[in-house]
Amino acid sequence: MASSCLESSAVPTNSVGVVTPQSIQFDKSIKLAGGGELASFKLMYETYGELNADRSNAVLICHALSGHHHAAGYHDLADRRTIGWWDNCIGPGKPIDTNLFYVIALNNLGGCHGSTGPTSNRPDDGEPFGSDFPQVTVSDWVKSQALLADALDIRRFAAVIGGSLGGMQALQWAIDYPGRVRNALLIACAPNLSAQNIAFNEIARQAILTDRNFHQGKYLDASSNPADGLGTARMLGHVTYLSAEGMNEKFGGDFENPNAEAAHDVVGEVTSYLQYNGQKFANMFDANTYLLMTHALDSFDPARVYDGNLVAALRQITARLLVVSFSTDWRFAPERSREIVDAAIAADCDVSYVDIESISGHDSFLLEIPRYHRILKAYMKEISDKLNS
Amino acid sequence: MASSCLESSAVPTNSVGVVTPQSIQFDKSIKLAGGGELASFKLMYETYGELNADRSNAVLICHALSGHHHAAGYHDLADRRTIGWWDNCIGPGKPIDTNLFYVIALNNLGGCHGSTGPTSNRPDDGEPFGSDFPQVTVSDWVKSQALLADALDIRRFAAVIGGSLGGMQALQWAIDYPGRVRNALLIACAPNLSAQNIAFNEIARQAILTDRNFHQGKYLDASSNPADGLGTARMLGHVTYLSAEGMNEKFGGDFENPNAEAAHDVVGEVTSYLQYNGQKFANMFDANTYLLMTHALDSFDPARVYDGNLVAALRQITARLLVVSFSTDWRFAPERSREIVDAAIAADCDVSYVDIESISGHDSFLLEIPRYHRILKAYMKEISDKLNS
Repeated sequence: MASSCLESSAVPTNSVGVVTPQSIQFDKSIKLAGGGELASFKLMYETYGELNADRSNAVLICHALSGHHHAAGYHDLADRRTIGWWDNCIGPGKPIDTNLFYVIALNNLGGCHGSTGPTSNRPDDGEPFGSDFPQVTVSDWVKSQALLADALDIRRFAAVIGGSLGGMQALQWAIDYPGRVRNALLIACAPNLSAQNIAFNEIARQAILTDRNFHQGKYLDASSNPADGLGTARMLGHVTYLSAEGMNEKFGGDFENPNAEAAHDVVGEVTSYLQYNGQKFANMFDANTYLLMTHALDSFDPARVYDGNLVAALRQITARLLVVSFSTDWRFAPERSREIVDAAIAADCDVSYVDIESISGHDSFLLEIPRYHRILKAYMKEISDKLNS
Repeated sequence: MASSCLESSAVPTNSVGVVTPQSIQFDKSIKLAGGGELASFKLMYETYGELNADRSNAVLICHALSGHHHAAGYHDLADRRTIGWWDNCIGPGKPIDTNLFYVIALNNLGGCHGSTGPTSNRPDDGEPFGSDFPQVTVSDWVKSQALLADALDIRRFAAVIGGSLGGMQALQWAIDYPGRVRNALLIACAPNLSAQNIAFNEIARQAILTDRNFHQGKYLDASSNPADGLGTARMLGHVTYLSAEGMNEKFGGDFENPNAEAAHDVVGEVTSYLQYNGQKFANMFDANTYLLMTHALDSFDPARVYDGNLVAALRQITARLLVVSFSTDWRFAPERSREIVDAAIAADCDVSYVDIESISGHDSFLLEIPRYHRILKAYMKEISDKLNS
């Protein structure tokens, strides 16, 4: 693989090009659903495309567990590794077309990419929050994102879009702020977590919590990092985001006709692949944020405040919904998406649903799968056409 | 739940009753497939039922990752928790009927229940082997089991039976010792591990290897135990042995119609259930044995020495085969069992196959599922009838 530094520094034609993160400080306190409160907070965000005259073409991108505000373009054209995490989907002529939309992506509250979170310093004593950072829920994120929208003078989003935990935010947006969301795109998500989902999150947490360098969450004070535990947590997440079929394909094992050489290599390749990815992640992500994100996932259940009645929750929605699932996603399986669809129909929502054939499991939502991107593009084009009609 | 001490100490009518483990010492060295060698070794085993006059009714039970020699009956009738791990299947009138068969169960070489393994002391210096214990493969187990059979003067088993890793041993037996196996029952197993299987094993190993108390495998010398890592490994194994549906049922979440109370409890219940099971396991199992067992799983591939040709491997078999899979087993899925069946048919084996409907995932092989046990019982009865005809 050629070094990325040697590549051309020209902007790819369908890229938003070089982007500069922005930040916004909120000096009003925010009360959190779990009982916590932050006296002030900062959100990091990026925007792509131009806001139109009537401020109606704004689109909000909500990120998943390990995501952040840098969704598209490059921070440094000379280093193509600085590409945004959803660059294949956001840009001029891409499914979320920056020629049509003003796209906002942010790092969630509690994150570790610049927004106020466990690695931030407390305003009172200047020490890192660490494990004292209050638990944040999906509703809290939506509330803080609404404050960001207020600050940017966006009254109503053309669309709120997210995959996985991001899709849960999009769903919560449509329920909590019906007047502010024209369309919600709920990709590879679920109306709540299954016991198996929760179990995998708990195992990941245990790996972090029992790491010798966790120091009860005060590892920054100890100039330490529970990298082993965070790495193991990531490995586990990663494996559950892939499908068994996709892994067999990736690691070259022709399991129905194995040969000695390939069979031998699979163990070594799987092992080094997982360890590499686990360690890489552990060096760029914060363990307390990982814990916070998994707790937010576990507690997600928009039906809870409607006495557990999902249909009642979805009756709040006025937005049009597009629900997308992927055939081999077993972490948030198609059946879970169809629970949302069924409840949306019962709640008289305007809902469309598509299940995309893919071998790539939960990770599919990040990939450039032709039918998936064609559908997103067509759906987004229709949204734009309606705005302008 | 009533205390088990208070229960009647009468033997249940279909139980083999109180059993006493036996051990056998082999003072001849055994060379292992991975290049290691043991100058001597001990195997723990139990037997149930009576060997018939022509020594033809012996059945060998091979255990899975966390199993051992105590498969049936009780070590102490006053403490019903001392019940064998497959007691529901082995006993008078049960599917593996001790009125018909002489059943032998053992703890595998490298185990931690009395057979020579990492917790045993080296003969030369009297210190525990720990991580110096040589890697053992499925073939090695089969070889050592054949030595046990020799010692008991069993020339040919009426059946070799196992689930999961035990099924792999039964398959290896049928290939390596065709003259010594009349029937092999291959339950919830696979002809080799998928990349996903290997990945889960690797994550479990990482949890152990990075535990602060692992001490490079010399934790016994340090009077220590990597209980956190072993607990996390077990939690992960446990979750992958269950099905998503089974977990939802177990934890009472009616996920299609959640209510606030139940939804709240699921997180706490899943968490405490996993932690309890992880810790319990960590206090009774040896981490080095866990590592050894997962490596044995990863390397299992009887086709390898036949140039990767599974059909060629199965052409060695003269035993009748019964292959059993379970509908929701995703760790060793029905498709993997069918790979064995397809290759067995191509190799002109006498093979029967049944897929059992069950919500309990991989764990199903240990459960008293009516159709499963009916089929095992009928198959075993036929074996007995043939022996006596």
